[in-house]
Amino acid sequence: MEEWDEVEVPDNVKEIFVEMKNTAELMVDLAYSAVLFREKEMAEEVLELEEYLDLLNYNLMVRAVLSARNLRDAERITSILQMGRSIDEISNAAADLAKMVIEEKLHPLINEVILESEETIGKVEVSPESILVGKTLKELDLATNTGVWVAAIRRGRRWIFDPDEDTKIMPGDIIIGRGTRTALEYLKEIAKGILKVMGNG
Amino acid sequence: MEEWDEVEVPDNVKEIFVEMKNTAELMVDLAYSAVLFREKEMAEEVLELEEYLDLLNYNLMVRAVLSARNLRDAERITSILQMGRSIDEISNAAADLAKMVIEEKLHPLINEVILESEETIGKVEVSPESILVGKTLKELDLATNTGVWVAAIRRGRRWIFDPDEDTKIMPGDIIIGRGTRTALEYLKEIAKGILKVMGNG
Repeated sequence: MEEWDEVEVPDNVKEIFVEMKNTAELMVDLAYSAVLFREKEMAEEVLELEEYLDLLNYNLMVRAVLSARNLRDAERITSILQMGRSIDEISNAAADLAKMVIEEKLHPLINEVILESEETIGKVEVSPESILVGKTLKELDLATNTGVWVAAIRRGRRWIFDPDEDTKIMPGDIIIGRGTRTALEYLKEIAKGILKVMGNG
Repeated sequence: MEEWDEVEVPDNVKEIFVEMKNTAELMVDLAYSAVLFREKEMAEEVLELEEYLDLLNYNLMVRAVLSARNLRDAERITSILQMGRSIDEISNAAADLAKMVIEEKLHPLINEVILESEETIGKVEVSPESILVGKTLKELDLATNTGVWVAAIRRGRRWIFDPDEDTKIMPGDIIIGRGTRTALEYLKEIAKGILKVMGNG
């Protein structure tokens, strides 16, 4: 990510707020993925996103406070600041997890805990034969069709963090996703080219 | 939930840790649901789960510290305590959200933010004609087949929080789920009885 003074912050209170919630959730997924796969570059991304989130939270606070016109307004606007703080707390927790990866002192038990949770993290490699190849994330809608939430894609030597709906899947891509073990297994079968149909289509 | 001295805490470090991660994630889903639907009973559940999580975290710390035998062990075990603290931070953020529901001073913008996030929360009512009726959550595997994560079920006047895999869906149940808007819409079609097949089956 670029320097913060070049970063575009959405300029409407709601958009800032939605961006904060999405960013914090992405950070948690990336943080657990970084811990599981000992991926320092991913951990660094989480720390950069934390700075971005702090900037968003600051902008949210300024705009929310500015919009208060009377006591009743002020009381309700306080709930916006409180929710902003909760989202910020979640992002701090993700950043603390990411720092553990950078410090390189992880206990092996941590991997087992991530792998055995109800929602876990998996790496899925896309074979050239897979029906995923050449389609955008919007067309694929993996969250609905397979139950896997895509947090990042490894393409050759580079990472695509938080891929958007226009990102096209390429042969050899490694998808980092969050879901149940069943959902991740299902996506693996599709990515290997074993299953040729997906979800309800 | 009962009094804490009657609560059973898993007695193996890994099980405690997995239970902590699952509980914190459930708390976040329930907290956002409580905020969106102004459900005080659900908010109270989040606060009770927070106490349970504190108890789990205390047990995790005691057992982890006890298991250290030398300096190298101790360094790695520190990462277990750190991850426990991160999970605890996430649960505190969820509890803060829940408290906002109890204080009844929510700004309407908060609903819009939850509804417009990438992952959102929805209420899905099950009609007697739906293929969901009479099946257990294990059989249905909604997380894989529809992309919706079930956080709670409203059955008549009572709530089932964190339903387990043996929970059977009954006609009239209201499922509180987390997923993308598309996934929630898809589950709604199935729950209404409009769609008679689901996922890859």
